[in-house]
Amino acid sequence: MADTHIVIPLYPEVTHLDFTGPHQVLARMPGVKMTVASKGGMDIDADGLVFTRLADLAQVEACDVICIPGGFGTTAAMLDEDFMKEITRLAKGAKYLTSVCTGSLILAATGLIQGKRAGCHWAWRDQLKPFGVIVDEARVVRDGNVITGGGVTAGLDFALTLAAELAGPEMAQSIQLGLEYAPAPPFNSGRPETAPPEILAAVKLRMAAAQAGREGAAVEAARRLGLVGV
Amino acid sequence: MADTHIVIPLYPEVTHLDFTGPHQVLARMPGVKMTVASKGGMDIDADGLVFTRLADLAQVEACDVICIPGGFGTTAAMLDEDFMKEITRLAKGAKYLTSVCTGSLILAATGLIQGKRAGCHWAWRDQLKPFGVIVDEARVVRDGNVITGGGVTAGLDFALTLAAELAGPEMAQSIQLGLEYAPAPPFNSGRPETAPPEILAAVKLRMAAAQAGREGAAVEAARRLGLVGV
Repeated sequence: MADTHIVIPLYPEVTHLDFTGPHQVLARMPGVKMTVASKGGMDIDADGLVFTRLADLAQVEACDVICIPGGFGTTAAMLDEDFMKEITRLAKGAKYLTSVCTGSLILAATGLIQGKRAGCHWAWRDQLKPFGVIVDEARVVRDGNVITGGGVTAGLDFALTLAAELAGPEMAQSIQLGLEYAPAPPFNSGRPETAPPEILAAVKLRMAAAQAGREGAAVEAARRLGLVGV
Repeated sequence: MADTHIVIPLYPEVTHLDFTGPHQVLARMPGVKMTVASKGGMDIDADGLVFTRLADLAQVEACDVICIPGGFGTTAAMLDEDFMKEITRLAKGAKYLTSVCTGSLILAATGLIQGKRAGCHWAWRDQLKPFGVIVDEARVVRDGNVITGGGVTAGLDFALTLAAELAGPEMAQSIQLGLEYAPAPPFNSGRPETAPPEILAAVKLRMAAAQAGREGAAVEAARRLGLVGV
């Protein structure tokens, strides 16, 4: 039997932990082939970590699973027609459409998850709406063959869920033990509902600054798909 | 005030999530300069992810924090005299000596944490003993200026602890919220104590296979330090 082929597409300003977490979980699974790709195979600098020897997205013939990470570059990526052409082509042929964090916006911008439930980073969830995607606040969201994670670190919980789907719960548990994934955060500030109000206010301000000038991207990408009143 | 300089040294067969987790937590902190380095600045292939544009370890003058990741390559790294010379030099001048996973073995091989408590990946903890390091099973272990994490994913809990130490608990909580770190593992298999017995047995077998031929490395490294009866 051929290996299960998992493709992780990267783009400028991706958040590296969005994909390094899932990659570490999935790469050591037997029977899995991982391909990490970018437009033209270009190197990707993510917060100062530079990833090289990437596959050229246009040269990746097909995959079983497409797993799209998020990051501040999501908004530019979903308006990059060359990039979206390859993402859409690969997603159309994939058995599972998956994402972590704001990667679900790119998935949404393929037009292939309209009417489906999906997760996203808490501060960016509303941007799923122009695509007709139903926002789900869960950490890992499954709707048929669409499996999406919440913000950044949700990639670990997402990837263990995907590993169980692909190779069974025993394999997922073995990987969890190997990676000693028994999290014990020193604070309880990981969700808007649990963070102290002054922390939430400060992070919301920072997120708004990061989003400034990018608010229209989802609407524009949805318009290109014919999803928003033209 | 000068930025806090955090150095992450890489080596062949490092486990990438050991440092990508902490890097993502620490890199966005204001007032922090991150340097990721390797011997000669060589590219590092970690489970198929290739990291490039790394600093040359020998050219890194000094740091405030050294943060050493783990991986199957630990045993070779701690016997690499050129590598250990630079690690020891940097660690001697650092304010905090830190590690994730089996990175504590490299820290131990500097001879600088003898008599201190340290954490390590559960399957490799005993290798701390030849160095006179006191094994601690906690997920994040602090003994004075030595802060060490358990296996792989403990790097996230470790890094938030370090962020709180460097910049206060509010900053750590802001980062936690930004990374949506409210973990919800789909299984409870992350520690030997909680994993199903058959899963533990299978992973122990796999770990033993990975350790085969490398069991003597810690004793040899300790002997070079004069810590084991010569």
